[in-house]
Amino acid sequence: MEKLKQTIQAIKPISTEFMKKAQKRLDNLTKPKDSLGRLEALAKKVVGITYKESPTLDKKVIFTMAGDHGVVEEGVSAFPQEVTPQMVYNFLEGGAAINVLARGVGVKVIIIDMGVASKLRSHPALVVKKIGYGTHNIAKGPAMSREKAVEAITAGIMLFEDEMNLNGIDIMGTGEMGIGNTTPSSAIVACFTGVKVKDVTGQGTGINDSELQNKIRVIEKALEVNRPNPQDPVDVLSKVGGYEIGGLVGCILAAARHQVPVVIDGFISTASALIAVNLAPLTKDYIFAAHKSKEKGHQIALDYLDQSPLFDLDMRLGEGTGAVLGINLLDLSLKLLTQMATFHKAGVARGKKSA
Amino acid sequence: MEKLKQTIQAIKPISTEFMKKAQKRLDNLTKPKDSLGRLEALAKKVVGITYKESPTLDKKVIFTMAGDHGVVEEGVSAFPQEVTPQMVYNFLEGGAAINVLARGVGVKVIIIDMGVASKLRSHPALVVKKIGYGTHNIAKGPAMSREKAVEAITAGIMLFEDEMNLNGIDIMGTGEMGIGNTTPSSAIVACFTGVKVKDVTGQGTGINDSELQNKIRVIEKALEVNRPNPQDPVDVLSKVGGYEIGGLVGCILAAARHQVPVVIDGFISTASALIAVNLAPLTKDYIFAAHKSKEKGHQIALDYLDQSPLFDLDMRLGEGTGAVLGINLLDLSLKLLTQMATFHKAGVARGKKSA
Repeated sequence: MEKLKQTIQAIKPISTEFMKKAQKRLDNLTKPKDSLGRLEALAKKVVGITYKESPTLDKKVIFTMAGDHGVVEEGVSAFPQEVTPQMVYNFLEGGAAINVLARGVGVKVIIIDMGVASKLRSHPALVVKKIGYGTHNIAKGPAMSREKAVEAITAGIMLFEDEMNLNGIDIMGTGEMGIGNTTPSSAIVACFTGVKVKDVTGQGTGINDSELQNKIRVIEKALEVNRPNPQDPVDVLSKVGGYEIGGLVGCILAAARHQVPVVIDGFISTASALIAVNLAPLTKDYIFAAHKSKEKGHQIALDYLDQSPLFDLDMRLGEGTGAVLGINLLDLSLKLLTQMATFHKAGVARGKKSA
Repeated sequence: MEKLKQTIQAIKPISTEFMKKAQKRLDNLTKPKDSLGRLEALAKKVVGITYKESPTLDKKVIFTMAGDHGVVEEGVSAFPQEVTPQMVYNFLEGGAAINVLARGVGVKVIIIDMGVASKLRSHPALVVKKIGYGTHNIAKGPAMSREKAVEAITAGIMLFEDEMNLNGIDIMGTGEMGIGNTTPSSAIVACFTGVKVKDVTGQGTGINDSELQNKIRVIEKALEVNRPNPQDPVDVLSKVGGYEIGGLVGCILAAARHQVPVVIDGFISTASALIAVNLAPLTKDYIFAAHKSKEKGHQIALDYLDQSPLFDLDMRLGEGTGAVLGINLLDLSLKLLTQMATFHKAGVARGKKSA
């Protein structure tokens, strides 16, 4: 608990002073004022986060956390639970979508077993921080104990800090894998936003309409049985969350604490961000939402975080696939800020408006 | 005229056969069916365009064409005409937004003087295909003769083919620079779509409201004076177009003819695409719209082309800046298609739906 408290207390506001400096530089670059639109806003926010006038985002890292969910016994997913370890092996072999995109963009992907239900074969690239062998069925009781919830968050903080100290992190993205994990995510989003379960519950990896109705009932039951308290985010995580969700909460908090921009992926990552922001409201300003997932309820969760996503490509895969795209765009926006010539340097006349 | 005719006649439909093969492969990759959303559709379309099951998009090229516009004497732009050559020099020195983004993504930018109003200093990286020293004022008469219009398009075709033969082109993007060139572009869009001038005319690089009213009147006058015939796209280009616009028309047609995917940038590039598609309707299937520009009228032009843009970032710079982002995303989509593991290869169980 001490580590978590310290991390939360050390998070400071992003710098409006540095954002003003960034705006001034942006307005001196050889382009009509504001003509790079949101790319300018992205660069400016990173300057505010890092307290650096010319930050670089060379060290790009995505934490892809895996965990299983006892609630799958209620028939909430289109895929069997064995797919969680199978996909972890696929990540480790470099054959999944996240691997391909990360290679294409130059992002390091760290794969963590936070709570897969089976024992995974060891692999040099696999980080094992197993908090448990899958959560309990939230339709029947809490996903995990309060202690385990704190342990999961703390593990996420430590993972971030270990990588930061060893190799450095300029920008972080979130990713996850866990059959059934849209179910706890919908429960978390419903709990914090107060929106009805049916309005934040979607088809995940592809269940049909009657399975969706069942999933909605299961989530409603989970909230009734557990009564998670939205004023107590650790309570929400322990009662209706997941181990990988807890790990991501830790990563997000640690990133904010170390002034590293956080790019969140899809629905599950956004549910994690809701917990992080409720634990430490200042975290909100460190977050960039990569994309609007096709999963129902994602927009509601993004609205809660005041986030306007960068991409809208009907993706609904998770793993960190959207986060990679977001990291890529942020990197390009920073390159514009730091590498473009100024009007003065290039000898270009200003327009009437920006003179 | 012969080269243009031959190019148009050689454009063939994209292959539905190859697109089916791509769909089959996509459905075998380790992800829930359709979960990569539009990235899957992008990859599939490139397979259809190239007639290749596993195309690569290594050789990425943007043609950024510069030209001046006599109509600037009517006060339609926020920037003085001298900025066209100044920005061309900035491109050549690598200090503009297009250079920074292209370096970041790995795209070659070819800078062409299609019709800058002044003589440019020679530079090893500058390609000179000057059709004229700026167009005539379209508010008073045609921008250029019909011969010059054909010459501009043909120059674009030759530029594409020269680069293709010398270095290869796997994917092409369009870009442009020309103070005042949203004015002819609005005229072109109004002419082909039949939409009122005021609904397709925006603030370009940043004119104020009364200047915008003047710009609208100027474009209305240009259409009245010249009466461009939308059934005759070369007539439209010659009467209310521009040299850089003509050059881009040629590049787009040549790309379609050589089965190379075309990523169009913002409003001016889209106006060029309207001319190309009216010259050769099959060209439409070779086009990807990179982004929705903030320029008024862009959405109308995109709708005319049945294009749903990939990005919506409030950009309005041109140069090819949006096209670079689109090329980047297309490249990643192809990498997913060709590099992801299949269910079989990775030993991952399929979901109920995709079994």
